Amino acid sequence: MSRAVVLLSGGLDSTTTLAVARRDGHTPYAMTFRYGQRHAIEVDAARRVAGAAKVADHVIVDIDLRTFGGSALTGNANIPKDRSAESMSSGVPITYVPARNTIFLSFALAWAEVLDAGDIYIGVNALDYSGYPDCRPEFIAAYQRMADLATRAGVEGKGPHIRSPLIDMTKAEIIRLGQSLGVDYSLTTSCYDPDSHGRACGRCDSCKLRLKGFSEAGVSDPIRYVGDGP
Amino acid sequence: MSRAVVLLSGGLDSTTTLAVARRDGHTPYAMTFRYGQRHAIEVDAARRVAGAAKVADHVIVDIDLRTFGGSALTGNANIPKDRSAESMSSGVPITYVPARNTIFLSFALAWAEVLDAGDIYIGVNALDYSGYPDCRPEFIAAYQRMADLATRAGVEGKGPHIRSPLIDMTKAEIIRLGQSLGVDYSLTTSCYDPDSHGRACGRCDSCKLRLKGFSEAGVSDPIRYVGDGP
Repeated sequence: MSRAVVLLSGGLDSTTTLAVARRDGHTPYAMTFRYGQRHAIEVDAARRVAGAAKVADHVIVDIDLRTFGGSALTGNANIPKDRSAESMSSGVPITYVPARNTIFLSFALAWAEVLDAGDIYIGVNALDYSGYPDCRPEFIAAYQRMADLATRAGVEGKGPHIRSPLIDMTKAEIIRLGQSLGVDYSLTTSCYDPDSHGRACGRCDSCKLRLKGFSEAGVSDPIRYVGDGP
Repeated sequence: MSRAVVLLSGGLDSTTTLAVARRDGHTPYAMTFRYGQRHAIEVDAARRVAGAAKVADHVIVDIDLRTFGGSALTGNANIPKDRSAESMSSGVPITYVPARNTIFLSFALAWAEVLDAGDIYIGVNALDYSGYPDCRPEFIAAYQRMADLATRAGVEGKGPHIRSPLIDMTKAEIIRLGQSLGVDYSLTTSCYDPDSHGRACGRCDSCKLRLKGFSEAGVSDPIRYVGDGP
């Protein structure tokens, strides 16, 4: 079994991606970042998911992206609520974190080199996150070309494969794929702005995309939302 | 004056690079990493250099690359001493840190986006560090293409310019350039394995390259070495 580094946020997409890495025959090594995000409950979800998936190792990397600011996810700006699907996809949302996926992939590249892992999995999605520049196929392709030169193996023009299996899928398709692979979505969290009990707000862009996906997949979302009771 | 992010380790190359960014007409913003390196004295040198250069801002980013291991610079392996120039340049040295420049540039990319800086300066050198995959021109070129897609500006295929002004220069040429720009090399440090007084060992690859450079430039190195007295 070959090793794969899997970027795991504890959300729906990365949890499904972890199951895909397993399906593809890899031994998964999960990597999670505590980066000053408001929704730090993500890290707890990532721990639960990594435990349930029995990954070979799980590292939590502390990097404080608040040093730079520039995002509603790490700063004090309000998280947008109740936006329409149209306004979500126009322009770059204020929840975009500068160069986040570039930074995450770079740490994954370092760990892959040390582990001698041939694959890095990232759950980026270009359909639902069309406004995030670092979720696009052309970004991933350019990252691959850079990664092919960046490490020891790069002396011979080789690097780990950057895998983004969800990049062209709708949220409903991702949920159906996860269900077919036995993913337990009750362990995951997606909300940008959960309450103090860890319940999802149901109104931020991320919640709305998630709920729409479950609805279209004809599956009920097993996590708790504000208003569901304590 | 346009802003530029300058990666500043406190060594000879990055200190010269900072002076080049200033010469090129930029307002410099310095970024230094505390990454678990054995030679943490670097960070003090970076502070002195940034202070002397009156940079607009200086951030020190904590990232613990020891989480992954894989390098003599962050682990317990012995730093090689008294190696010949030939053995230094064959293969990838054990002082190589996995994906270090990829990670550093990715943080610089994030900060450049927040600052709206059009340039990122990095003091990589392909001649003296031919064994480091992430010091080669082809790596920097591939990083540029990725950076052109990674950020908000990347939606239109634009990113900050990645500048590596020293990439083709010898150490002696770098020192002469720095002298012409008024760089005070007494503030810098290069040693991989300084003693507890901060004196350079004079015998690791980095010291040997530095001493050879000063010798070839016909300039005396102003820093203290072990044996120079207390």
